[in-house]
Order: sequence, then structure tokens, then C-alpha cells
Amino acid sequence: MRIMVLGGDGYLGWPTALHLSARGHDVITVDNLVRRGYDSELGTTSLVPIADLEQRTTIWREMTGRTVRYAVGDITDYDFLTSTFRAFTPEAIVHFGQQRSAPYSMIDRSHAVYTQVNNIVGNLNVLFAIGEIDPAVHLVKLGTMGEYGTPDIDIEEGFIEITHKGRTDTLPFPKQPGSFYHLSKVHDSHNLAFVCRAWGLRATDLNQGIVYGQATDETILHPDLATRFDYDAVFGTVLNRFVVQAVAGYPLTVYGRGNQTRGMLNIKDTVRCIELALLNPARTGEYRVFNQFTESFSVNEMAEMVVTALGIEPKIEHLNDPRVELEEHYYNAAHTKLVDLGLVPHLLDDDTIRRLAAIVKAWHDDIDSSVMVPTIHWRATASPHGARGTAAPPPTEFENAVGA
Amino acid sequence: MRIMVLGGDGYLGWPTALHLSARGHDVITVDNLVRRGYDSELGTTSLVPIADLEQRTTIWREMTGRTVRYAVGDITDYDFLTSTFRAFTPEAIVHFGQQRSAPYSMIDRSHAVYTQVNNIVGNLNVLFAIGEIDPAVHLVKLGTMGEYGTPDIDIEEGFIEITHKGRTDTLPFPKQPGSFYHLSKVHDSHNLAFVCRAWGLRATDLNQGIVYGQATDETILHPDLATRFDYDAVFGTVLNRFVVQAVAGYPLTVYGRGNQTRGMLNIKDTVRCIELALLNPARTGEYRVFNQFTESFSVNEMAEMVVTALGIEPKIEHLNDPRVELEEHYYNAAHTKLVDLGLVPHLLDDDTIRRLAAIVKAWHDDIDSSVMVPTIHWRATASPHGARGTAAPPPTEFENAVGA
Repeated sequence: MRIMVLGGDGYLGWPTALHLSARGHDVITVDNLVRRGYDSELGTTSLVPIADLEQRTTIWREMTGRTVRYAVGDITDYDFLTSTFRAFTPEAIVHFGQQRSAPYSMIDRSHAVYTQVNNIVGNLNVLFAIGEIDPAVHLVKLGTMGEYGTPDIDIEEGFIEITHKGRTDTLPFPKQPGSFYHLSKVHDSHNLAFVCRAWGLRATDLNQGIVYGQATDETILHPDLATRFDYDAVFGTVLNRFVVQAVAGYPLTVYGRGNQTRGMLNIKDTVRCIELALLNPARTGEYRVFNQFTESFSVNEMAEMVVTALGIEPKIEHLNDPRVELEEHYYNAAHTKLVDLGLVPHLLDDDTIRRLAAIVKAWHDDIDSSVMVPTIHWRATASPHGARGTAAPPPTEFENAVGA
Repeated sequence: MRIMVLGGDGYLGWPTALHLSARGHDVITVDNLVRRGYDSELGTTSLVPIADLEQRTTIWREMTGRTVRYAVGDITDYDFLTSTFRAFTPEAIVHFGQQRSAPYSMIDRSHAVYTQVNNIVGNLNVLFAIGEIDPAVHLVKLGTMGEYGTPDIDIEEGFIEITHKGRTDTLPFPKQPGSFYHLSKVHDSHNLAFVCRAWGLRATDLNQGIVYGQATDETILHPDLATRFDYDAVFGTVLNRFVVQAVAGYPLTVYGRGNQTRGMLNIKDTVRCIELALLNPARTGEYRVFNQFTESFSVNEMAEMVVTALGIEPKIEHLNDPRVELEEHYYNAAHTKLVDLGLVPHLLDDDTIRRLAAIVKAWHDDIDSSVMVPTIHWRATASPHGARGTAAPPPTEFENAVGA
């Protein structure tokens, strides 16, 4: 299958490109390299060094004899996108090409506007390119479990049957996203559902949980094939950050009470889920949603698992939650559709955590503890100088009402 | 009350500004005049001539002794918005300042992207300006009943109590918008709900039905106080267009089978609803939704009412529906919250239609029948030259599946 991977230079886009190439697909990665630019802006860097796209693809060809092509450009530039599309003639597009950090979107107005415009316009361009050039192309779009928020009912996969005043319909699951980034994904989901209905496009929206891990079967073949490992408070995800804190001997920083529960998955399952969605495409005109995670844990549970697996002193520090989120809530989200297609999950165990810690130990001297402190406070995003470095304002009366 | 009316030069913004000024509020209208620019772009014009903002406000002062100030600029320009905000120090903001035509948003990619970026960024800027300058400001934001689409259950006002697998929660009502314009309003609604929760802002989201009529108690005081009257296929709303077709002796053009049912309201009720929302503001941190319409009619019912009221030959022409929408569907939408606040609806009757026809007759010679033909086909928006003037492609297999 000819597959275009948008955002194919990123944390998950790159391993996905390799995974698909390894299985014999013809892959082109498309990326504007802006993720590397965010590092410069924020003064952070991947803990594991990463090669550039030319090196990466060259090494991949040398190691496997397979070619992953690449095109550098921005999908918000429609001419670039369509010329790349016409030249490659993809049968499927995997769309990772978005600003993906909730804290980044909450820095200030300009980052909020950037995140929503970048993500929405890029996605609209993809939809228009498919509609204009080849409506048969199957779009596999990355969404997030964070689109749902934490409703006090079970979360279903994209849709819910509602019986109301004696009538019943199956409707989009109500969304309660918790950052401008998560909101951008909700906007994308609505745009996607519409074009499937209006133009007969076909799309799979993968509402992904929080990914942990750094190694896949393909990225471990050579150091220059490694993908990013982020542990900073802006782009680092929670479990990866805990492992770095544990290895470095710092306290594990839990936001608030730590009973926030989230769906999680191993990076090895991400790449496999993408492949399963591609091999079992949506029908013409179908907009379908898969919840892409394998297990749920509370933040406290994750911290405890890291402490146990690595046999470290249990130093856990509860910080005031920089986010606005429920710290105690019900959470039970369906995630059977990918399993039905054949996903065999890599579950989180001591061994997984220890292998992750081994990667971190190899780069121990490069750990910069300063980047792990959360400095972006959701309540302060609209303050005159933005949320960065501003102390979070104390909770106010209205917050008691919303339970945040 | 000091009230800033964004989009205060438009069809509804201007009468709202006058209505609020007449009731003693201190009003500033803010507008980038782009609605007049769409006329130039599309080769259309308001049937009733409209004065410019300087004339309008001058005449208003002469007629009533009251001042409506105005500022010309674009709310997507944050510096303009915040400097105007700081100078005027509003206690409330009424936000009409968006691209409001579904067909316009469906012309082609560039109009779709423009509509979503313009509407989303303008609205985000308003939210940030309130958050930064004065979080106590009450935002009254215009949404649309079209955000809900046509679910097969009763539509509630913004939220619905869902019982699912033995648990119950009140969640945002699921949205199924039917154009890039309607989608932009859904995106706004999610952004609004979030900032009320995260920053304690307070907002009223008015999901308005289709407005008909052209005269309010204030706009009729002088010809230079008149508001727009659009009857073209892009910006004209259905009942206004039917009256023009009837007066001109053309067939009333019904899209598809004509059993599409929509909530409707008189322009006199629009201005009253805005005032009621302002006089009864949302609480700190509250995001509330009112469904702003007074009655529901099918398109066929509206055509028949116009025929009956005006005693004309019943010439009704069913065109292939340029939109993608259900032509037969259940429709029962709640709309009690504004009535509870004191709204006494002006219901649609023969007299209303006859008075509207009298306005149209005064400008009979200026009617341009060519602009009433729908030329924007939802199914063709992504085609290489856009949807304008392109014949709608025939329904395909997938459409049978969605019933469109």
C-alpha cells in the first residue's frame, strides 16, 4: 500500500513510517520539522539523540534495503500538500502532522491560536486534497482520548446510543476537551465526520491514549533510527517523565491529588494500531472512531508502578495541578475495536519500565531537571504575559462549582 | 450597561445595537465592514439600501438624541480588539462578528478555511481579551440551531442528561453540523465552554434559528436606519427569499423535498432575546446555552404560508438540494429558556408576511432574480474549481447509507 505519513519526523510518526515500511508498504513521510523547532523555542531537546530525516532514511535503506521517502514542507501550504500528494499518489494517509502538546497550547494567546489554526487548517487541507484528488484515499487521523474529558458515564468509541424522551438515536459522543490542543482535535473530529457525510470520504479517527516507551522493533535496529524521547513538562508524557525522574533520583512529580485516570499504551502498540486501521479501512462515506489505548491507570498508580519496578525510594511530590481537570473522577472507556481487528496489547509491567529506564540510563548525564518543572498554568493563559512562569492563581469560587 | 456589539454593521448586529441604545445602554459597534465586501465579491447587494456606519449613527443621534459609537477594525487583529476594549471598558460583549453564511463557507477550500479561521480566531481573541482585561464581562455569543443538525431525538438547550449503562451525567448535546460555517460555530461552542471552566469566564451561547423580517421598532424610524435585506442564495435566508420570489412573480424555490424543518424567529425577537440575555447574565464560570427561536416550520410549510398570505399563484419549484441534509426527519427542539426570561414571541402570521412583502414591493425594481439560483453545491466543494456553478454530482452509493 502507498502510504503518506504526515508528521513522519515526530515521536510517533517516525516509528510508524518504519513499521509500515518494514511490512512492505511504500511510505513517504511528510514533515515541516517544526517539532525540532519547538525544542529550540522551549530550550529542550530529546533525551535520546535523533538523526535528521536524511540520515534516518539513509540508514533505514542501508539496514533493510527498504526506502522511506520524505518531503519537507508544511501541510497548511495547500500547494505543497497537493503537489506531494499528486506525485506520490497515496492509497492511504496517516495524519500525525499537528501540534500535539496540551501545555504548549496553553502558553498564551499566540500559542493557543497557533495550535488551533495550524491543526485545523492542516487537517482541512488534507480533507480537501483527498476530496479533490482521490476520494478513495483512506485517512487515518490521530485524535486523542482527551477529547472526551472525564464524563461520569462510560466512554464509548466515538458514538453513543442515547434514549431520550422515548426516542433513540446513535450520536457523536459528547466531548469535553481540557486544553486548546484537545479542543483542536475535537474541531478536527467534527470536520472529519462532516466530509465523510458530505463528500463520501472515508476516515478512521484514532482517539489515542497517552503513549509511553521509546523503542519499537524497527527503531532499535540502529541508533540513527531512534525516535524522540521527551521528558520535559511541555512535550514529555507522564510515564516517560516519571522514569526519567526515577533514574535521575528526583521526586516523581504528580499534579494535584493524582487520581486523574487516563488510557495508556505502549509505543509498540501505536504503530501496530495504525497498521491495523490501514489494513482494515473504513468504508466509503464512513467516519469511524477507535479508542486507541490498552489499559487505564491513575497518575498515582503509574508513579507507584515506576517506584516498584525500579526498586527506588518512593519519593512522590504532589504539585498544585497546573491544569484544570478533575482530580477524582469516574473513568471507564471502551477500547475493543482495535482488539477486534487483532491488536495484542503490550501491557505495562515491571520489565517494560525497566527497559525504558535502561534507555534513560544510557543518556543519564544529559538529563536536565529544570525542564521537568511545570511552568504553564491553565488558569493563567489569558493573563497579560501568558501562563509561562506565572504562578497559578488560587482556586476561586467558580472552581468549586465545577469541581476542578 | 456598556455593551460592545461585534459585527454591529450587519443584518442583526445593527438592529441589536439600536435596540440596546434605545433602552438606554451605552453601545459601541465594532465591525470590519467585510459583509459589504462579500456583496462586492458575490455581485449581490442588500435589496433595501443601507447607509454606512457614519450616516447610520449620525441619523440615530439626530432622531433619538442617543449615541451609538463605532470602531472599524477586525477582531482577528488582537491589538485592535484590546485597544478598543480598553478604551470602551464594556460590561458585556455581544458577538455577531463572524462569517455567517453556510453556502459561502461551502464555495471552495479557501472560503471554508477563511470561515473557520476567521470565526475561530476572532472568537478566541474575544475570549482572551475578556480573560486578560476583565473576566467579569458577560459574553453573549451568537451560535446557531444548525449546530445540532437533525438528530432523531428531541434537541435540548445545549446540554442533555444521558443515562448510560447505569450511570447518569449531564453532557454537552451532541452536535452534527452540516457545513463548514456550522462547524465553525460548534468549534466556538467548545472553546467557549472550556474558557468558562478554565478561567471562570461567563458566557451565553445563543443557538439562533433562521431569522426572517427586516424591520424593528428602531430601524423603521428613518430610511438611513434600515438594516440589510438579503435574498440571494448565499446570504438570503429562506423566508425572506420566498417573499421576494413571491413579490417578483417567480416560483418559490424549495431545495429537495422541502420537509427539512427548522426553528425560525422574527428579527424583532432576535433583538429582544439579546437584551434578555444581557439583563439576566450568566454567573461567573457559567457557560449556558439558549435555543433562540420561536417556532418550527418545514420549508414546504413556509412556502405555503407565503402563498396563502400573499394570495399568489402557488408556484413552487423543487430544486435538487444543493446541501447535504436529511429532507425528511424528526424535529422537536426545546426553546423555553428565553421565554422563561420574558420573551413574548412575534409569531409568523399572514400579517407579518404581508408587511415583509410591502418592504420588498418598495424595492421591486431592484430585484435581481439571478442571485436567487443556488449555485453552491455541498458535494462539489472539494472539486478542483470549487462548488460555485458546478452541477451537483449525482447521489452516490454512500449517500443512500446516510440518507442524505
